[in-house]
Amino acid sequence: MNLPQEIIRIKRDGGSLNRAQINDFVTGVVDGTFRDYQTSALLMAIVLRGMSHEETAHLTEAMMHSGRMVQLDEITRPKIDKHSTGGVGDKVSLILAPLAAALGLCVPMMSGRGLGHTGGTLDKLEAIPGFSVELDEVGYRAQLLDIHQAMIGQSSDIVPADRKLYALRDVTSTVESIPLICASILSKKFAEGIDALVLDVKCGLGAFMKTEAQARELATALVRISTTMGKPTSALITRMDQPLGCCVGHSLEVMEAIECLKGRGPSDLKYVTHELVAEMMRLGGLCDDHDSALAQIRAALNDGSALEAFRQLIIAQGGDATVIEDANALPQAAHFFDICNKGTDTSYISCIDALKVGEAVHLLGAGRTHADTVIDLSVGVRFFKKVGESVAPGEAVCRLYYNDRGKFDQALERLDLAISYSADHVVAPDILIDQIHKI
Amino acid sequence: MNLPQEIIRIKRDGGSLNRAQINDFVTGVVDGTFRDYQTSALLMAIVLRGMSHEETAHLTEAMMHSGRMVQLDEITRPKIDKHSTGGVGDKVSLILAPLAAALGLCVPMMSGRGLGHTGGTLDKLEAIPGFSVELDEVGYRAQLLDIHQAMIGQSSDIVPADRKLYALRDVTSTVESIPLICASILSKKFAEGIDALVLDVKCGLGAFMKTEAQARELATALVRISTTMGKPTSALITRMDQPLGCCVGHSLEVMEAIECLKGRGPSDLKYVTHELVAEMMRLGGLCDDHDSALAQIRAALNDGSALEAFRQLIIAQGGDATVIEDANALPQAAHFFDICNKGTDTSYISCIDALKVGEAVHLLGAGRTHADTVIDLSVGVRFFKKVGESVAPGEAVCRLYYNDRGKFDQALERLDLAISYSADHVVAPDILIDQIHKI
Repeated sequence: MNLPQEIIRIKRDGGSLNRAQINDFVTGVVDGTFRDYQTSALLMAIVLRGMSHEETAHLTEAMMHSGRMVQLDEITRPKIDKHSTGGVGDKVSLILAPLAAALGLCVPMMSGRGLGHTGGTLDKLEAIPGFSVELDEVGYRAQLLDIHQAMIGQSSDIVPADRKLYALRDVTSTVESIPLICASILSKKFAEGIDALVLDVKCGLGAFMKTEAQARELATALVRISTTMGKPTSALITRMDQPLGCCVGHSLEVMEAIECLKGRGPSDLKYVTHELVAEMMRLGGLCDDHDSALAQIRAALNDGSALEAFRQLIIAQGGDATVIEDANALPQAAHFFDICNKGTDTSYISCIDALKVGEAVHLLGAGRTHADTVIDLSVGVRFFKKVGESVAPGEAVCRLYYNDRGKFDQALERLDLAISYSADHVVAPDILIDQIHKI
Repeated sequence: MNLPQEIIRIKRDGGSLNRAQINDFVTGVVDGTFRDYQTSALLMAIVLRGMSHEETAHLTEAMMHSGRMVQLDEITRPKIDKHSTGGVGDKVSLILAPLAAALGLCVPMMSGRGLGHTGGTLDKLEAIPGFSVELDEVGYRAQLLDIHQAMIGQSSDIVPADRKLYALRDVTSTVESIPLICASILSKKFAEGIDALVLDVKCGLGAFMKTEAQARELATALVRISTTMGKPTSALITRMDQPLGCCVGHSLEVMEAIECLKGRGPSDLKYVTHELVAEMMRLGGLCDDHDSALAQIRAALNDGSALEAFRQLIIAQGGDATVIEDANALPQAAHFFDICNKGTDTSYISCIDALKVGEAVHLLGAGRTHADTVIDLSVGVRFFKKVGESVAPGEAVCRLYYNDRGKFDQALERLDLAISYSADHVVAPDILIDQIHKI
């Protein structure tokens, strides 16, 4: 047993922590023998000194074992999950899980609540009346055996070390660390009992990672650590400068996800989702190659089986499945307002700053500032135009859905700042930047 | 008002904190708005990112003002204190304060309790029966006006920020930082209301700073920051490879200090003490040059005025002054044991490892492991030989004074490891390594 201050000293001086020392740290965080002030000192030393891939794998493993491990051994389908580093308008999970389930995979998806402007999948699902994300392990397992998908909140006995560490990192400016981010993401995903993992590492204005270099570093580290831990993993690096798809806001995003499951919807959102599902199929051994995966995906959308899988998911988790046919069954905002091209010439959209859009929707009441914030599921923004598209004079660029006039004024101001126009043609860059396979 | 996590982030990213941010930090540490885990994260960032001299001066000033400032304006003599970074056998303060008082200075010395092997001045003074180091401010000021010296414990309302920071640094491996060490030392000394300061920065086996380079860096930083703050300060860099003087242990060190005040005692101890007092006189404007300072010091020792000043100090603080004439009035150990040259040839002492000697005396019961440890004032070691001296076969090198047989066995083993012999002549290096004046 190493004293906390000895473990801290090693990392402070740039040394490597061995498996036993990392175990002592994680165990101590959970049982309190590593005091908060010692934990935060070590976290800062890790932020500034870094961790090797081996240390990060040990940290991930120790965190994964810090609480209950979900046992899904009786499920014979390949159990594969997806994790996104978070972006504005990211409703990929809502499309991906039923689609993958329709194609023969099992998707045991557990998520945390989103804080800040990027929102969370759980909040989006709760826009569906009656939909519950609280499921005990017995119900969860039964649902996975039955319909091969579940989307629930992570219970507090899974990776308790991450809960404590994340709360501390948030208030001690020790969030920005590739090893700490990797261990946090992967420990939670691997505690779900999955066989393999697909990652969507986003970069750009609306993402946590602002530059391609940062996103590539994170994606590479995630894939390398997963591989070290014997879990096949691959990562897409995708662009998050403008929101993904056209809708931002819980109800609106559910509607857009349903559109995509019906084979319609915005092309950037469909493209990213299909690429991720294709990668899941490859890892699960369900396709010969990328083209055959995409063909199977198209088929599942065209024949209605993906949409049917989403209906099963809603019903299984207590939701009102009429939302699939009738968008009015989702929470609706009382008012809307269109932002239009006020110029006298046709312009091209040169930028829709995803961070500012996220902030605007947050200001409308859709965002969670504290864990107990009551959020407005009905508000949001729908874009009629994306980057590169032309807007005639007076034509609408987007529509704000709002309930509260005071919040609307603030949000409108932020949204106006988000949108830039150009007199010249603008070409939107590719959304898929790179793909990191096993290293 | 800056949020703690914003202040942490700036330092984490290698930026400089301004005066307001440093004030917010120190105020927050004292009033609790900077939580312990935030403080330790910032401390680690300071350890790894450093602080400029300007930042360190701001930190020192903010800490100094975090509690009560002692007011000594009515005292007309130059008020000059000495601080040592700590070493084994360091009883310089006991000689220096009465000597400087006898020479026309005022020495308002406040100290903390020593932890670990280096011991503390307060513990040594308490070996004198009846001597009290607890004095309220009224009594303290009256004594300074009367006999121009006082040696007391620092009360808890002086620099409370240091108390909290030090307790955290100790358990989070954030002690080793030049800016934090400087601010801790200087804030406490300047809160005493002194005009100038002399520093004894020790380096070597028994010191906190192991290398000359480290000691020089600390000494330079201390002098530069003091100067920035308008307090004339100079630093001696002195060697602490072997214990200072011949005695280690509370009673034994009081005896040795009295010997020095009688003009006798070991030459290394006298040399360091006289150099420090000469520097105090220079800073206080009480001498024309170094030689005249040393002449005044010799005179004060020869005419008994220094010893008389020590008698006044003992009486003023309630102690039994008969210890000056009768060493038996000090606590005496029940047993002693001599370590002798077991070889058949005359050898030379090549090393007396001060750290191991300190640990041995700690093992005998003289050291304080926790703040509430009851220490044995009577135990210790007296060296008959110092580095470079010859020891004939069978001749004693040192004498252990002990009370408890079990403790003795452990201490003897450690002490044996401390002493090295050589067949060849050995020359002890100079004790004074360098002197750092205003930069």
